[in-house]
Amino acid sequence: MTELIQKGTAAKNASFKLMNLSQTTKSNVLKAIADALVENTDYLINENAKDIANAKAKGISDAMLDRLSVNAKRIADMADGVRSVEALQDPIGEVTYMTKRPNGLMIGQKRVPLGVIAIIYEARPNVTVDAAALCIKTSNAVILRGGSEAINSNKALMSVMQKAAYAAGLPEGSISLIEDTSRQTATELMRLKDYIDVLIPRGGAGLIKSVVENATVPVIETGTGNCHVYVDGDCDFKMAENIVINAKTSRPSVCNAEETLLVDKSIAKEFLPGMLKKLSDLNVEIRGCEQTLQIYQDAVPATEEDWYKEYNDYIIAVKVVDGIDEAIAHINKYNTKHSEAIVTNNYAKANRFLNEIDAAAVYVNASTRFTDGFEFGFGAEIGISTQKIHARGPMGLKELTTLKYIIYGDGQVR
Amino acid sequence: MTELIQKGTAAKNASFKLMNLSQTTKSNVLKAIADALVENTDYLINENAKDIANAKAKGISDAMLDRLSVNAKRIADMADGVRSVEALQDPIGEVTYMTKRPNGLMIGQKRVPLGVIAIIYEARPNVTVDAAALCIKTSNAVILRGGSEAINSNKALMSVMQKAAYAAGLPEGSISLIEDTSRQTATELMRLKDYIDVLIPRGGAGLIKSVVENATVPVIETGTGNCHVYVDGDCDFKMAENIVINAKTSRPSVCNAEETLLVDKSIAKEFLPGMLKKLSDLNVEIRGCEQTLQIYQDAVPATEEDWYKEYNDYIIAVKVVDGIDEAIAHINKYNTKHSEAIVTNNYAKANRFLNEIDAAAVYVNASTRFTDGFEFGFGAEIGISTQKIHARGPMGLKELTTLKYIIYGDGQVR
Repeated sequence: MTELIQKGTAAKNASFKLMNLSQTTKSNVLKAIADALVENTDYLINENAKDIANAKAKGISDAMLDRLSVNAKRIADMADGVRSVEALQDPIGEVTYMTKRPNGLMIGQKRVPLGVIAIIYEARPNVTVDAAALCIKTSNAVILRGGSEAINSNKALMSVMQKAAYAAGLPEGSISLIEDTSRQTATELMRLKDYIDVLIPRGGAGLIKSVVENATVPVIETGTGNCHVYVDGDCDFKMAENIVINAKTSRPSVCNAEETLLVDKSIAKEFLPGMLKKLSDLNVEIRGCEQTLQIYQDAVPATEEDWYKEYNDYIIAVKVVDGIDEAIAHINKYNTKHSEAIVTNNYAKANRFLNEIDAAAVYVNASTRFTDGFEFGFGAEIGISTQKIHARGPMGLKELTTLKYIIYGDGQVR
Repeated sequence: MTELIQKGTAAKNASFKLMNLSQTTKSNVLKAIADALVENTDYLINENAKDIANAKAKGISDAMLDRLSVNAKRIADMADGVRSVEALQDPIGEVTYMTKRPNGLMIGQKRVPLGVIAIIYEARPNVTVDAAALCIKTSNAVILRGGSEAINSNKALMSVMQKAAYAAGLPEGSISLIEDTSRQTATELMRLKDYIDVLIPRGGAGLIKSVVENATVPVIETGTGNCHVYVDGDCDFKMAENIVINAKTSRPSVCNAEETLLVDKSIAKEFLPGMLKKLSDLNVEIRGCEQTLQIYQDAVPATEEDWYKEYNDYIIAVKVVDGIDEAIAHINKYNTKHSEAIVTNNYAKANRFLNEIDAAAVYVNASTRFTDGFEFGFGAEIGISTQKIHARGPMGLKELTTLKYIIYGDGQVR
């Protein structure tokens, strides 16, 4: 039996036991995990050191090294994260509606776990803890497959969590890590339809593409974000500048950061020079359309490719558009359906933007950077869905559940 | 440009216009379609006659011929179906919640169309009309790909609908039929990710399997139903008999029909002889486990394969089980997560069955045959989902929509 089949079988069996696990037990499990992580700080740091040494030998980037590193503070943060999830309201078991039909049948819908969730992610050890906690809270079994660079850290975190969780009453097999980090195993995991109910990939465009191509398990795509801010002709320039600067520069590496600035041509000459100078002073490279280049000579010419790009970097594409029609058409053509914003004082244009833009989150007069489970008030986040089915936008606990119909009869036949 | 790309592009373009289509226009469109179908009865019957002639020449089964046939009564029924959809409440535009965050952002969720829906189905002309009506009502563009046996009927129905709908204000390209019914085109359609938001296959296990293997577009699986009735030791025999007979024989060809009967061993000797005699008198073939064979000699021995089978026919598999634990374990192992029923007078066992069975619809003391959008009170049905994400069980109008976050700010940055 391969590792995948063995862990898949164990997870499927555990998922049936998880359906009936009490909220009290789940709370005990999560608290035990949080305590165990802190208690095993030295061990976890030592195991992480192996990954760091290997990564340095391979010469990976500083940004990746930083994401991979675990220290006492970060372990304490992971434990706090688990405690926060424990404190959230349990969504499982809620009956969202129940109605009586003419024939006397009582038909309702009840919130239940998805079953077995598989998560494929990159070299971020904190995701191992985070994802396990969210799945336990929602009574799901989970199979994790992290990046090879973090394998020692992930194995250590998983063994600490398993020991604490199973002792506190979590059914064995509920949480597991695939230790074979080959690409082939990842592909097999995507096709493990008999054991996995939902696959959630968390990572860059390459991973998402591979999942879409290969998966036979239902997928919730999380996502890449080619986000736009459209500055309308009728707007407060100061507000527009604040929003553009925040959306672009507060954290350029994340999916809700701005990638393209669209400006109404009626204000382009007045607005762009100051705006682009400010961005440039913040070390943002400007890639402009022809009209932008005429207004702001220091810009680099943008190519067709730039409109599609998620830079995740200090680069911005800038395009002058002929009003809201062109802005909406441009966004709906090039965006990845993540987060889009308009800055305007005009009521009708605000409404048109909200109605006509096809994206998970559409903003009037606010930064795209708010698309986040915590900022939306969910208290947790498993990722941001850019697909339209099941979940759209930030996914919290509820998005890790499904509804089943429960029907109470007294002998009805059709 | 291939037919698929041309119709996909037209549908995608139409989908943006559909977002803002008024309820009044949609009602006018649906009424116009209903009227046009009736007015063109002769033309539709003539075109259908070509399909019937071809089908007869190929020697297809009577059951399939019946499903393929169109007559004046059936056209009137299709038109009535469209009028019923028109009369349903429009789900689009509902704001399901809106909340104010500490920073003053107003964050809400709004019900919006999915965008472009593709539906692949078999040789049933009524689905062409039904699916188009449901998609129009929910402001979705739709691309239909019906079975090759019904191509003349489908082309005629589509041309009648398009002419009436576009004249009444539906954006051009909103509804279309793929006229190339080759298998290769179907596979390409499943991978048309740039133009299609969701794919809904409606058909047998072969179609579903092909979709799962090939699709890169997000899929809502509809489905095959290996449904069980478990007759508990503590139950009303008369009620159990009624439910089993109804679930098995009222319409054996449909997905919510019973395929396997499970009986508690404590009552097997008392209950089974009468029950199986009644089924046998209704021409149902009995395939029994060893214990069943000992009790009822006229049964055929069931093999392991039988427990997996969706017969869709006058055949039933029968197994004696050691109480509710074995019943639940058997169902969770062999079912297709469609509809499952228990017949019992025992409160605790009813609750365990409801909680522990993994299926879209779980019944206490009622026939599995009620799993149906109309029976559930939705007024419409596009299919029955057997997957867990997005929609589970009968899908009505709401399941053809998604939610988008709308955020009202006054300059907030993060």
